[in-house]
Formats: sequence, structure tokens, C-alpha cells
Amino acid sequence: MDSCVIPLRHGGLSLVQTTDFFYPLVEDPYMMGRIACANVLSDLYAMGITECDNMLMLLSVSQKMNEKEREQVMPLMMKGFRDAAEEGGTSVTGGQTVINPWIIVGGVASVVCQPNDFIMPENAVPGDVLVLTKPLGTQVAVNAHQWLDIPEKWNKIKLVISKEEVEQAYQEAMLNMATLNRTAAALMHKFNAHAATDITGFGIIGHARNLAQQQRNDVAFVIHNLPIISKMAAISKAGGNLFGLLQGTSSETSGGLLICLPREQAARFCAEMKSSRVGLSGAVGQDGGVGDGQQAWIIGIVEKGSRCARIIDKPRIIEVPYRGSVVNAQEASNNNASPPQVQQT
Amino acid sequence: MDSCVIPLRHGGLSLVQTTDFFYPLVEDPYMMGRIACANVLSDLYAMGITECDNMLMLLSVSQKMNEKEREQVMPLMMKGFRDAAEEGGTSVTGGQTVINPWIIVGGVASVVCQPNDFIMPENAVPGDVLVLTKPLGTQVAVNAHQWLDIPEKWNKIKLVISKEEVEQAYQEAMLNMATLNRTAAALMHKFNAHAATDITGFGIIGHARNLAQQQRNDVAFVIHNLPIISKMAAISKAGGNLFGLLQGTSSETSGGLLICLPREQAARFCAEMKSSRVGLSGAVGQDGGVGDGQQAWIIGIVEKGSRCARIIDKPRIIEVPYRGSVVNAQEASNNNASPPQVQQT
Repeated sequence: MDSCVIPLRHGGLSLVQTTDFFYPLVEDPYMMGRIACANVLSDLYAMGITECDNMLMLLSVSQKMNEKEREQVMPLMMKGFRDAAEEGGTSVTGGQTVINPWIIVGGVASVVCQPNDFIMPENAVPGDVLVLTKPLGTQVAVNAHQWLDIPEKWNKIKLVISKEEVEQAYQEAMLNMATLNRTAAALMHKFNAHAATDITGFGIIGHARNLAQQQRNDVAFVIHNLPIISKMAAISKAGGNLFGLLQGTSSETSGGLLICLPREQAARFCAEMKSSRVGLSGAVGQDGGVGDGQQAWIIGIVEKGSRCARIIDKPRIIEVPYRGSVVNAQEASNNNASPPQVQQT
Repeated sequence: MDSCVIPLRHGGLSLVQTTDFFYPLVEDPYMMGRIACANVLSDLYAMGITECDNMLMLLSVSQKMNEKEREQVMPLMMKGFRDAAEEGGTSVTGGQTVINPWIIVGGVASVVCQPNDFIMPENAVPGDVLVLTKPLGTQVAVNAHQWLDIPEKWNKIKLVISKEEVEQAYQEAMLNMATLNRTAAALMHKFNAHAATDITGFGIIGHARNLAQQQRNDVAFVIHNLPIISKMAAISKAGGNLFGLLQGTSSETSGGLLICLPREQAARFCAEMKSSRVGLSGAVGQDGGVGDGQQAWIIGIVEKGSRCARIIDKPRIIEVPYRGSVVNAQEASNNNASPPQVQQT
């Protein structure tokens, strides 16, 4: 499971906790703080938990940074982390900072829940469908961005993507990673989700397999569609199946939720992800400049099987356009709709 | 405060949490795991909390260790951590491990409490006395042990201590650091403690000052006695006031609790620390081979003042003998007392 669930001695309550910490993977310290916090909270959201009672921040300052670098970088990272926590309706009230060769950023999210507050990830049934709430490809996007400065790497992929597109894909990946899965968690209750997990280091297939193994029923997950940040599939192919993106093994950071939903609910779940805020802010907010809902995709089905997961032979690649172009496309097709409000935090 | 206290949405309950992680300071990985866990739990014990609902373990494996070293060291460290958690009546049900240049070991302790379960550290009154539940000097002992192999360091202290004594002092420090403050936490309730903190990185005077600042009443803490692991004061003097041990600034790891107790209760508190187990295991247990109660000392008084703390000009140094000699002395003076039972965990 993504979080641990501890039954308490008090009136049927449970303590649900999760921790995650890692090394910076984007250059912008503020966004890195946001991503780290979104990544920690995501383990709660995967259980349909929308509230968090407390967040601890775990930090290490790099001993290789001089005083000035520390003063520039660390407060921004902490601000990003705190802002994302606030967007998640919680606040950071503790933690620890140490000196270390490398920067580390992470946290511990804790919440005390009543039984109805969370959805144990174990009740998928044949006939359910699989929904994914963020596109794949963050690892490819982050690496491609680093390769702009490494000619021998860049040469391998420059035929399939321009430098501007790499920059856009990187921005898109960063915004996705910094987006909370909180709206999806709330909608899991509304649309009767049977199980969910969040996609991180093991890639979509790794997490799909883990989730399948936890099911009470004899089910198998079959993935037909792979929504991927635009051009990242092409980069992966050009690089000789880079990171196994098309096999689902490319690791993601702060990825979307993979949710098992009753078939008749899934389309409405996706529609509501896109249109509604459910009273929660699921977007990056003012700093990220993104006010629209998140897209979600039906990517597969749950059939009878032996608690395993697979991607079909030739999955359909859904090229997910960069945010700028999404907004333009929306404006063109739907220019009398008023833009959704960004909840300012 | 040593822990954060988060009021919950459920029936007057509070979530109390603390986190601590640091780098190994003793060579024995098993003991290091125990010490790390004792150190995390100590923040709860300082608030009179005797239970812990969940422990997360935070680890980093050093990238400089080869496969074989990792396989030898990390499981022992984890076992030590888990054993100490079990002795604290809790278990480790989550956490994260990363690769890092340095080894890191730490954890997150969480408990959901009713109002009576914890003692806010803010109600000291003039007339109280200060009790300390472990001797000082762990930093000096750990460093002196390292200096056995560094001639220019060793030469500075060899006139006041033998190599055997350094070894014994190191063992003593290690056992003290690995001892849980749980018995003290339980006795804080029985003897109506007004406030407490645990002694760690800021030394006794730093933590005494922090505690003084949190008091509701106009009080000052005055420390008259410094219980110090035998010969560590002499080393500190020989080294030119090494670490400021006699000024109370030498940092401690997993130190004792500093407790404000009503004067008429303090002697009984100390007596019960030494004699009784209060149904809890306060000692290192089978592995450490220590079954007797912990010593505690009345070290100072609370008087009217401006929320500050000081050590008097010439404090009395209490030389706390190494455990071997304690047992021998006890056996000599009291050889018809049956030895206390070690609670096996």
C-alpha cells in the first residue's frame, strides 16, 4: 500500500502515514519543493484521503553549497513545499534539517481517519476500468532537458524534437509533478472507486502490478492506452527504447493516480476531473498559472485473472499536448466558456 | 517543544509527532540503530507520553559501501532500530531508504493522544526541582574513543585516563544512549511533573534554556550538580574545556530527560527510577545486558526569574561510575537483593 494504516486505540480511528524523500530533479528550487510535497501527499490521495492533519518536512542542505547558495536555494525550496502543503489544506509544523553531501527534500504526511475517509486499495472487480490522472513521461522530459547541454546525448534525439519542444515538455512535466492529486482523491469517493495507487518510481506497469497483487478478487489489469507528454514517446524510441517508457517501466515522479472504477462511472469521473474543482484546488495555482481542471484518461480494463498487470502489444499512445497548446485549443473550440477560478493560496 | 501537537477533528484527540535523523556516531551498527530509535522516541517521552502508535524508519545506505558491507551493516542497524521500537511498545510499519554518500538513520514517531496522555512542558513553578535521568558526557566519550587511534589527540588526554577507561566510558555512553526514557515518562505522571525536555544536541544548558523560555510562570532554572560519566569531566578539562562539557554546552545524543518536579516528589521519583520498572522496560535488555533501574539525579532548582537557565559558578561534578563497577558496588553492598528482572522483548 502507498501509506501505512495503523488502527488506533480511540473509537475506530486509524492513523494513516506516509513518508517520501528524494534528491532534486528539476533546477527550480521552488518547483522542487512543490513537487516533493505533492509527491508525499500523493500516497494519501491514492487512498482517497483528501485531508492531511500534519506535514513534517525533511531537508538536507548540501555541504557543497556556499552560504549564499544556501540562502538562495533552501528558502525557495521550503516555500514551494509549504505552499503545496497549504494547497493540500495542511501545514508544515515540524521536521528536521541536516547537512549532507547532497540536497534531500521530503516529508511525512499524517492523518487520523474515520473508516469512511479512506478506500482500501483491494476491491477491483472484473468489468472495472482503469483511469490515469496524469500523463506519463516525466523521467524522459527531465532527462531530455539535461541533454540539451550534452551534445552526444542531444544528437540521438534531435531529429525527433526541437529544443523549444524539449523546454516545453520539461515545463509540462514540472507542472504535472507539482499538481496535487487531491481532486482525484475526492472524486474517488463520489464515483465509488474500488482501488487506486499513485505512479512513481516503478513506472506505470510496476505500480499496476503492485496494485493487482493486493486485490481480494481474481483480477488482472490490462492497459490499452498510454497517455504520454507529447513527443516523449518519440524520444524514447529514438534513444533505443529509453527508460522503457512504452513498456511502462520508465519511472515517474509525483505521477498521477491509477484508479479502478466501475465502468459506468469512469467517463463521468474523467469529465468531472476536467471541469470541476470539487471545492479543492487541484492545479498549481497562481505561480504555475494553471487554472483549468486536470485531464484523466481511461487507459485499460480489469478482467478476470491472477492478480497481474500487463500492457497490450501495441498500446495506443495518446500524445498529451503541452499546456500552452491545450489552453489555446480550448479557447479556440470553447471561447465562450468562462475560465475556471484559480483558488489562491 | 520536543514534539509537535496537532489538535484533531475527532473527539478532543491530538496527534503528537516527532522526527529525528542523523549520522552514525558509534561503530556498532546494532547499537546505532537502537540509539537512533531511542533518540526519536525520547521526544515523545519528554512530554510524558509512554505509548507510540507508529514508527517510520528513515535510512540512507552509503554509496561508498560495497554490496557486502551493506549486507552486513544495514540489517543490523535496522534490527537495532526495530528492537528498540519494540521495547517502546511500538513497531516500525513504514519508512524509506535511499542511497546517499553518508549513512543516515532516523525515524518518525507518531501517537494519537487524549489530553491526559501528555504533559505540556510549561508549568514549572518556583520551588520545583530539576531532575536529570541520564548522565552527561556522551559526546566526550564518543570522541575520546576515536582519539585512541589519533596520537596527537590521545596525547592531550592520556594523563587523565587509561585506554581501558576510555573503552569503558564509551560502552557506558553507548548503553545510556540506547536506553529508552520510557520509565521516566511514566513516572512523570505518577509524580506530577510540571515540565520536561530531553537533552540532545544543544547540551544541558541549551535545552534547559529552551524549556525555561516555554514556561507560563516567571521562573529561572539554576543547575547546581552535573552528573557526568566518570572521567569525562577530567578529559574535558585536560583538553582545554573540551566541548564545554562543564558549561553544559557539550552536545548529547539520546540524553536523559530534564524534568521539573515538585520538590517533595523528586526524591521519590529518583528512587522509583532506580528500583522499579513501572511495568515498562527502561533498560537495554538482553543484548545490552543491563537489568537494573536507571539512576536519576536532582541537579537544580526552579526559582523566580525571567525564563532563563544557568549553571552555578562551581557546580558539583557527580562522577557516574561505569556500569560494570556499579553492578559490582551494588553486589558488594546489597548482595542479598535479588537482581531485577529484565523484561525480554
